[in-house]
Amino acid sequence: MNEAFVTLRWEARSLILLDQTQLPEREVYLVCKDYRAVAEAIRRLVVRGAPAIGIAGAFGVVLGAYELIQKKADLFAGLATVFTELAGTRPTAVNLFWALGRMEKVATAHRTESPEAVAAALEAEALRLYQEDIETNRRLGVHGAALLTDGMTVLTICNAGALATVAYGTALAVIRAAVQAGKCIKTVACETRPLLQGARLTTWELMKDGIPVTLITDSMAGYLMQQGWIQAVLTGADRIAANGDVVNKIGTYMLAVLAHAHGIPFYVAAPMSTFDLTLPDGQRIPIEERAAEEVTGWRGQQIAPEGVAVYNPAFDLTPARFVQAWITEQGVFWNQGGKIDLRVERSPAD
Amino acid sequence: MNEAFVTLRWEARSLILLDQTQLPEREVYLVCKDYRAVAEAIRRLVVRGAPAIGIAGAFGVVLGAYELIQKKADLFAGLATVFTELAGTRPTAVNLFWALGRMEKVATAHRTESPEAVAAALEAEALRLYQEDIETNRRLGVHGAALLTDGMTVLTICNAGALATVAYGTALAVIRAAVQAGKCIKTVACETRPLLQGARLTTWELMKDGIPVTLITDSMAGYLMQQGWIQAVLTGADRIAANGDVVNKIGTYMLAVLAHAHGIPFYVAAPMSTFDLTLPDGQRIPIEERAAEEVTGWRGQQIAPEGVAVYNPAFDLTPARFVQAWITEQGVFWNQGGKIDLRVERSPAD
Repeated sequence: MNEAFVTLRWEARSLILLDQTQLPEREVYLVCKDYRAVAEAIRRLVVRGAPAIGIAGAFGVVLGAYELIQKKADLFAGLATVFTELAGTRPTAVNLFWALGRMEKVATAHRTESPEAVAAALEAEALRLYQEDIETNRRLGVHGAALLTDGMTVLTICNAGALATVAYGTALAVIRAAVQAGKCIKTVACETRPLLQGARLTTWELMKDGIPVTLITDSMAGYLMQQGWIQAVLTGADRIAANGDVVNKIGTYMLAVLAHAHGIPFYVAAPMSTFDLTLPDGQRIPIEERAAEEVTGWRGQQIAPEGVAVYNPAFDLTPARFVQAWITEQGVFWNQGGKIDLRVERSPAD
Repeated sequence: MNEAFVTLRWEARSLILLDQTQLPEREVYLVCKDYRAVAEAIRRLVVRGAPAIGIAGAFGVVLGAYELIQKKADLFAGLATVFTELAGTRPTAVNLFWALGRMEKVATAHRTESPEAVAAALEAEALRLYQEDIETNRRLGVHGAALLTDGMTVLTICNAGALATVAYGTALAVIRAAVQAGKCIKTVACETRPLLQGARLTTWELMKDGIPVTLITDSMAGYLMQQGWIQAVLTGADRIAANGDVVNKIGTYMLAVLAHAHGIPFYVAAPMSTFDLTLPDGQRIPIEERAAEEVTGWRGQQIAPEGVAVYNPAFDLTPARFVQAWITEQGVFWNQGGKIDLRVERSPAD
């Protein structure tokens, strides 16, 4: 954890978030003192990235609990509302529901204790999730680093970096670990329209780390592959089904098809908390649709005609057969006959 | 020619251009009174699109000739400079060189006549190119319309519309002709980063015509194909090699690979003047690289960290094997064993 910034931290019973909507121009921190502020921050993408919104959601529950205690309201009835509101912020990334599930379990386990004891247990669990995320990403990075060889240029989309997690990142943790192991790795960042997380966030954090990064528009990825400049594609994930189907930032599927057509390996890096084993495949993962204004304008500046019809899915579905390997904190799972087999885990050193 | 705007017109010895850098917000016309203004307008993309810059270049030569006569300068020595400067504006689209070649031939043919007679002949040739472009696109549209069936949704990139030609467009001429033939055609416009010709221009002109258009980011094209929403991809071209390799707006290659992977036909619509028969394939077509600022900012607003490395090719190369058919004013050429065979032309009705 040597990043020159902190994505989110818990301090004096407040959740402090680096406001990612203002990057890279301004490095501003938003202090959330109640769960509604956390919910709003998740909705507005002040904090984003599947692991980070899970952790933020967990602290949202803690803030909700303390607020209910202060108001002398019924803790468990109140918490139900808190859970519902936080769960309703964003539908796709499963880490949010996973983290809220962990918090709910703790609340239930402490049901017979005083509200203060329940809140303290919730705070401890959120801090545990926070610490676990750091360790998970560190391990995931080390496992994945073995897949990258010296001199490679790796293409990525959106931001699966420290800004999407507590620290290290997922896809970028792999790159960081490879660089730390002495490998020379160059990166290419797809700008990631419409919200430009690649242009604004991935470039920003890689430049802070001194890792070479070249920015391209999303539409250039195929041409770079054709020209032989890309040796691997590495992305994060917002939800992975039991068969390995991956839902991730819109444009990921395009990269997977292009990588496949060019014989370039396509890797997905994500913690085990991103797996949704209740879904046999990715078909039923809800794909969030966001406002047309994200496509028709940029920070208030109109770039398309008034009233134009827009379709703005925030994520897409990459079938498991396109994924060479899933990189997790438990090791690297190689594609087995077109899908993941979570029983056949092999460390890359095998 | 019933468009509600005029891309370029010749009036009172001036070339009047709809300033496309200001669309869709402002409909402003730029009056070019000398050839340097035309060259600058082509470089700045005030006028863009392979056929349109060819016509604009031709009128640039006319303006150059009149200026030389007014200055009593040596016409042919001066015209050589005019040709060189106009040819140096943009390297990829071949229509510019083709149109300049037509003008040069006329100048040479009238070499023994008075400067005024040469200038008059050049003006007549530019006006002929202008009229030919309208007729070419109209015919091209009618030929291509047979490939589109009622109820289809057609995906396009950049602007291969009336704004890229004197009238009708190339890809959009096909859509217009199909609609005129009574077919219900929906269109999806890729926004076309970095300069957003899809978001700003294609939506704008299709909305003026009342043809249904939905705007997406370039990264969404694959997902839409996966979901079964696209029945054909239809693009223009900036240069086509003798074997049918197509150089067109960056992102076109990505669409071709995606269309291929989804079994969706990929059509290219372009006048015969876009073919460069001196090149056996597309490998040696120069790909223009443009300024990093086109990617890192939008109209002066920075969207990426200061000093980030950027790669900004304006075009890419789609191998002929991805193209189902080339739609021209001479008819539709179907892919023959992975390439075009200009001797085997078949009208779609065959």
